[in-house]
Amino acid sequence: MPDHPSFLSLTDIADMASRHWGRALTAHVEEGGGEDQTRRANEAAFDRLRIWPRVLADVRQGHTALTLLGEPFVHPVLLGPLAYQSALHRDGELATAEAATAMDAGMVLSTLSSCSLEAVAAELPARKWFQLYFQARAEDTLRLVRRAEAAGYSALVVTVDVPVHGPRLRSQQAGFAMPEHVRAVNLAGMSAAQTHYLQAQDSVIFQGHMASAPRWDSIVWLQQQTALPIILKGILHPQDAVQAKKLGVAGVVVSNHGGRALEGSPASIAVLPQVRAAVDDDFLLLLDGGIRRGSDVFKALALGAQAVLLGRPQAYGLGAAGALGVAQVLRLLREELELTMALAGCATLADISAACLVNPNEFSAC
Amino acid sequence: MPDHPSFLSLTDIADMASRHWGRALTAHVEEGGGEDQTRRANEAAFDRLRIWPRVLADVRQGHTALTLLGEPFVHPVLLGPLAYQSALHRDGELATAEAATAMDAGMVLSTLSSCSLEAVAAELPARKWFQLYFQARAEDTLRLVRRAEAAGYSALVVTVDVPVHGPRLRSQQAGFAMPEHVRAVNLAGMSAAQTHYLQAQDSVIFQGHMASAPRWDSIVWLQQQTALPIILKGILHPQDAVQAKKLGVAGVVVSNHGGRALEGSPASIAVLPQVRAAVDDDFLLLLDGGIRRGSDVFKALALGAQAVLLGRPQAYGLGAAGALGVAQVLRLLREELELTMALAGCATLADISAACLVNPNEFSAC
Amino acid sequence: MPDHPSFLSLTDIADMASRHWGRALTAHVEEGGGEDQTRRANEAAFDRLRIWPRVLADVRQGHTALTLLGEPFVHPVLLGPLAYQSALHRDGELATAEAATAMDAGMVLSTLSSCSLEAVAAELPARKWFQLYFQARAEDTLRLVRRAEAAGYSALVVTVDVPVHGPRLRSQQAGFAMPEHVRAVNLAGMSAAQTHYLQAQDSVIFQGHMASAPRWDSIVWLQQQTALPIILKGILHPQDAVQAKKLGVAGVVVSNHGGRALEGSPASIAVLPQVRAAVDDDFLLLLDGGIRRGSDVFKALALGAQAVLLGRPQAYGLGAAGALGVAQVLRLLREELELTMALAGCATLADISAACLVNPNEFSAC
Amino acid sequence: MPDHPSFLSLTDIADMASRHWGRALTAHVEEGGGEDQTRRANEAAFDRLRIWPRVLADVRQGHTALTLLGEPFVHPVLLGPLAYQSALHRDGELATAEAATAMDAGMVLSTLSSCSLEAVAAELPARKWFQLYFQARAEDTLRLVRRAEAAGYSALVVTVDVPVHGPRLRSQQAGFAMPEHVRAVNLAGMSAAQTHYLQAQDSVIFQGHMASAPRWDSIVWLQQQTALPIILKGILHPQDAVQAKKLGVAGVVVSNHGGRALEGSPASIAVLPQVRAAVDDDFLLLLDGGIRRGSDVFKALALGAQAVLLGRPQAYGLGAAGALGVAQVLRLLREELELTMALAGCATLADISAACLVNPNEFSAC
Repeated sequence: MPDHPSFLSLTDIADMASRHWGRALTAHVEEGGGEDQTRRANEAAFDRLRIWPRVLADVRQGHTALTLLGEPFVHPVLLGPLAYQSALHRDGELATAEAATAMDAGMVLSTLSSCSLEAVAAELPARKWFQLYFQARAEDTLRLVRRAEAAGYSALVVTVDVPVHGPRLRSQQAGFAMPEHVRAVNLAGMSAAQTHYLQAQDSVIFQGHMASAPRWDSIVWLQQQTALPIILKGILHPQDAVQAKKLGVAGVVVSNHGGRALEGSPASIAVLPQVRAAVDDDFLLLLDGGIRRGSDVFKALALGAQAVLLGRPQAYGLGAAGALGVAQVLRLLREELELTMALAGCATLADISAACLVNPNEFSAC
Repeated sequence: MPDHPSFLSLTDIADMASRHWGRALTAHVEEGGGEDQTRRANEAAFDRLRIWPRVLADVRQGHTALTLLGEPFVHPVLLGPLAYQSALHRDGELATAEAATAMDAGMVLSTLSSCSLEAVAAELPARKWFQLYFQARAEDTLRLVRRAEAAGYSALVVTVDVPVHGPRLRSQQAGFAMPEHVRAVNLAGMSAAQTHYLQAQDSVIFQGHMASAPRWDSIVWLQQQTALPIILKGILHPQDAVQAKKLGVAGVVVSNHGGRALEGSPASIAVLPQVRAAVDDDFLLLLDGGIRRGSDVFKALALGAQAVLLGRPQAYGLGAAGALGVAQVLRLLREELELTMALAGCATLADISAACLVNPNEFSAC
Repeated sequence: MPDHPSFLSLTDIADMASRHWGRALTAHVEEGGGEDQTRRANEAAFDRLRIWPRVLADVRQGHTALTLLGEPFVHPVLLGPLAYQSALHRDGELATAEAATAMDAGMVLSTLSSCSLEAVAAELPARKWFQLYFQARAEDTLRLVRRAEAAGYSALVVTVDVPVHGPRLRSQQAGFAMPEHVRAVNLAGMSAAQTHYLQAQDSVIFQGHMASAPRWDSIVWLQQQTALPIILKGILHPQDAVQAKKLGVAGVVVSNHGGRALEGSPASIAVLPQVRAAVDDDFLLLLDGGIRRGSDVFKALALGAQAVLLGRPQAYGLGAAGALGVAQVLRLLREELELTMALAGCATLADISAACLVNPNEFSAC
Repeated sequence: MPDHPSFLSLTDIADMASRHWGRALTAHVEEGGGEDQTRRANEAAFDRLRIWPRVLADVRQGHTALTLLGEPFVHPVLLGPLAYQSALHRDGELATAEAATAMDAGMVLSTLSSCSLEAVAAELPARKWFQLYFQARAEDTLRLVRRAEAAGYSALVVTVDVPVHGPRLRSQQAGFAMPEHVRAVNLAGMSAAQTHYLQAQDSVIFQGHMASAPRWDSIVWLQQQTALPIILKGILHPQDAVQAKKLGVAGVVVSNHGGRALEGSPASIAVLPQVRAAVDDDFLLLLDGGIRRGSDVFKALALGAQAVLLGRPQAYGLGAAGALGVAQVLRLLREELELTMALAGCATLADISAACLVNPNEFSAC
């Protein structure tokens, strides 16, 4: 992909993707839950934070390397688990994996991948994690775990924030339907949902969906089934992070599912400082939600994350130009991160702290 | 009513109602007092509050049941007193009662009902309260009370916040006039207003309207006339709530009449915490004003209300599709409430508290 | 003037006036100084304040009467000094005086009146004050004072906030010029400005305009010339109010000249509490700037003003319908004030205090 | 240039310049870095500050004179270093110098001047400083210093905030390219950039651009080469200002390069109070970024700057009408400053302090 002026920013890439996708699919990607309160809060919260520039610093030895779960990472920008990527571009998750490899980025493959987890793994020499949705039947969950282990994924990222999905108003009104050929191929042959025989006064939510949702003891069970490190994705409350740590999980993704889980929940970046304060300095915290430029990565790291996951930016890149688009998104964010670090006088990620922000406590109604 | 995409949210339902109503009637329903400051404050105040999601909680036994005035309620969303409903839909309050019954919702019938209070009561097997406006003559007030008692209403909701109405600019400019056939049938034969002979320097407000307005001693008088529990509707100041409790009334509706009473008064949800702090934890507080989604119900309960009343959402449902429309509004709000509870880790209403909110004190100029 | 729906609010009246005036004159009336920061701040500051409604109060004896400088006033809404009113309506200040008389309002006549101060005085049986601009020559100033005394004005309101005027961008760009026939008739024969012979490096501002501007000792001089009470108009800083009181002037108008004096100065209502705190409770404080509805009058009184002056609202009324328009503006504001008092449980002006506001300290960047 | 109504404000002048320039060049001038967050923050921060008017003060001896680096200045508004001015107007920096001389303004000539530094110096009898960018080779830097000394510049302003430039999205998308004939003539024959041989894993930012960026020891080296006072331009962090002072430099320009350096850095005016508090009262602090009217100059001085630099306003003037345009910008700002001083009761710059502001600490997310 040439360095075309219109691909100089994520906005340009998102515009191109939107043209490729059309209205319905764009609505599907863009929408948050309900009326987008939380999605908008994610981005607005980043915009309020200000970074201190530092001048004349010596950053000639600068780099963005880090270690996550014992594995070296070249930079802290990971591709988060994004479902059904073949709907976004014909090459789907394989394209994303190609970009991850080219740009030295970690990648988290979704349970709802539209390419087989083995095929994607084959494209990824390193830094590959598998995102796990608990299935209706434990044996199905276990089958996914075994396949992920066998394919060489080095961690399980268990999503815990959407035991039940709220309505997706925008995409439904835009008439979005998942194309026939895009399927969760890794779940082939598995039971889609547990059957619940509801009583007359039973609630579809409480006695229906929530009856088969994972609980804390599900995590304990999972820990007993696998030696892979487990990361819980979708925690915002500090006490939930403390509980996760107490159980011995390897880390937590501070996330509100891009605003699609609980409508009205806070911006992930807005609660990150409280979460970091509740666990110790070494406990692994990742963040997603609202990362749109390299300075946002810097802000997330300043407030306590070790690394970040990309959601929509990844989709934009894929929709705009497949593997090249995702690679360009990664390149932009990494270069902007390096630029921010250089101008903030930070040679390494370890130099990034809350002291690098002018107003680290600037959160109100985010 | 089929689960049509355009009825997935209150916004869709309001749009449909507006198309049925035309400009003048829509203006009549939508307008707050004056320039809508307070009406807008109601909704904005909810939008600022953020809810903590909690993950992996066990809510399989979840439900929304509660007890109000000794009577079991299936959920905490009540249909508030809305006048002249036959202007909104030809079936008027009878349609609303049908929806209340179908969706197990409590209903408060307005003194200004366009259907007879007895006919509406006949549609409601339970959870029916009567909203009382003091009449110019005490005997008329008393006749209403006796009829409400006879018809089986189990509480009186006395509205106290509009002894005099401010101008309704938007509907007047839109040319709204109440249709001929829509009348306050329960007041047939009663004297519309007490005659005041004003002196030259008398004020139409003070010596006119306010001369026949109810005062605290009117409440005492009413308590002596009936054994029905009395709830005062339209209180915002904590000291007024304390005074109400001191008199022995059964509860208070924290309300600013949908922004139609005192222009410039605060959002009801913004003062609810102060009101709750001023009375004890058991005193019955209901809230209306600005409830537009299930998460708003959750927020109101978190800040101290036992239940909420719907105003405009009820009107939207009625205008959009009569009984089915009101039922859909109730269904949406209840399901959204259950979804919010499930994702906030609350199995019962008793689990909902200020600790469930990220920023329970986030009110500024609301 | 009939109670036409389009005259139910000040907005309607302003719209009508604007149609009568055309673009250039409307720009002249509407514009604040510079880019209107301060003018907008005036109105925004009122909008942030919230009033506590109080229910079931006994306000049957309610009224809006007060005493200012020993003279009884029926209500606290005065017509402020507005220059060149014949540009706004052919009847000019005589129409305004007629409305003041009809609606029992106090009126402050501008030095720059386009009708003679004696003719206007003849229309006003009571409650008439004269606004004084210091003239280039002391004898001219004195002549105005003597004429005001002779015509029966009972106080002098000395404007002190515009010793030099900033640019009026909007009206100049709109091509506004004062019509030939509209003149400051009271200044006929007086010297328009003192001649300053500036040196090469002299400043037009400091050595030019400000050389003939009144200073504190000018006020002392004026006090020696007249027995009329003197009110200083255009003070915002608490220490200036303290200085005024120390000199023995009768009162102060807290004002920023409708945003036309110092661009970037605060909203008058935003600093009123500080000014009131700096002088004692009895010292006369009036306020102008941003009063657009009766609830604004209430808010100004709650924060320490005894009464308010109208600027633009008066112009709107005059432009819309001459004397009848000004009368309607006064009627609207007085009725809205009474309505607000009734719903806030205040029977008299003395009952209005900061405790009537939910957020009396809600000022930020106003 | 006649006092045409459309040149009464900077907005008018900017509009005229924009018409002359066309879309691409206008985008080049207007854009900040990234998405303009910081650029917008600069202006928004000024708008929040409110100035206290003071009345009846004696300012007849008023003036705006000051001394900077031992040299008398008539007023505190300097023309900041603006690159490639021949792109903005055919007369380039020579026109700007003519305006500076006519309006007694100080001028800082950019290293990237499109006119020779000697030619510009010849136009400037006094108050001329030279802005220095460190060159790839020390001997080139030194040659610039020697020429500046020889030409009579009395200070070096070393820009330290853009060791590497972020993307300029708006101008690139608008298709802007610097015209062929506009060149950095003072750098003729110098090496544009040091050659870095990057390793495979090297970063273009850290091991590329930053390898040749100046560091604190570069400043020490420069101090050893010249007797001219050195001012560092582009410092926001108080500790960097302290470090600069400790090294013995003559002063600091608090600046974020018009929002073009580190995207997401704070408004310069927002951090000025912290910078002033960190150095002593006499240390020279200048400010640029967001100055758009005379009251902004006043606010900057109130918060601790001795003088301000103009960036974009200078460009607007040049684009609108060459030397006359720049002169008009200076005239407007100076007169507005004097007007503000007069109305704030300040006769001299020394009278301007934080006490002149209503809300000197009013900065949030700026």
